[in-house]
Amino acid sequence: MMRRHDKRIAERSELETILDRSLVARLGMIDGDQPYVVPLNFAREGSTIWFHCASHGLKLDCLRANPKVCLEVDQLYGIEAGPSACKDWTSSYESVLAFGQAEIVGEETEKRQGLAALMHKYSGRVDWEFDISGMSTVTVVRVKLFSLTGKRSPIKS
Amino acid sequence: MMRRHDKRIAERSELETILDRSLVARLGMIDGDQPYVVPLNFAREGSTIWFHCASHGLKLDCLRANPKVCLEVDQLYGIEAGPSACKDWTSSYESVLAFGQAEIVGEETEKRQGLAALMHKYSGRVDWEFDISGMSTVTVVRVKLFSLTGKRSPIKS
Repeated sequence: MMRRHDKRIAERSELETILDRSLVARLGMIDGDQPYVVPLNFAREGSTIWFHCASHGLKLDCLRANPKVCLEVDQLYGIEAGPSACKDWTSSYESVLAFGQAEIVGEETEKRQGLAALMHKYSGRVDWEFDISGMSTVTVVRVKLFSLTGKRSPIKS
Repeated sequence: MMRRHDKRIAERSELETILDRSLVARLGMIDGDQPYVVPLNFAREGSTIWFHCASHGLKLDCLRANPKVCLEVDQLYGIEAGPSACKDWTSSYESVLAFGQAEIVGEETEKRQGLAALMHKYSGRVDWEFDISGMSTVTVVRVKLFSLTGKRSPIKS
């Protein structure tokens, strides 16, 4: 899948670190024969990615029709100018792609686990309470990852 | 397509401004039955989005098989903490989705136009020279947009 092997980030732990420090991922889905991408907040636990969304909407319709997803995070560090157009100009960036299968979580204990992972990531705290009425208005999605790849340019040792 | 109409950015000029000040877009494609998303630099001219890439790779394979794309840009301004989990926490962000049809540009004049648009955006200069040997190693893709939508949260007047 990756053409430029010299840019590949090989270490799983490094890919996970890049994912974990990203506050926004872009969720790629398929809507009929049309790609559909939305930004979202997310949290990773092992090979699971959690996110939440409203109980109705195109995102859930797409995931129900085709649960395969591609989550993308990137960080642009800068664009380096060169004397000639195009080939002397380089972007300095890191990006990670996570491919997986999305599953809409119904069971309350699992839903709570996903919301706790999200709140932990974004608040740094683990002592949140989730009341059932608040939880009922939100849908939790779990993505089981089957592939994690990343690129870094320029190449750093 | 958009569930929360109160968050909608209605003005075309505003959507274009958000696109133009974004240095990275995420290109959503379809790879068989799998979504595929990659970050890229891009430039907009009217209802056209230009980007360039290597002459071989999965991106071009996907675009040849299905030229429909979804380009996404977003800007996270902050995450506002609240006293209760989930419902009191809100992301402050803007995002734009651009749906369109990708076309791999073969003709030299058009290729030059795309590269000039990219160099203009990223360098601020319009006086670049493009030699044919440098241009031959790069593939230029033009996306004709057929839809541009955006969201902003929280709602600002």
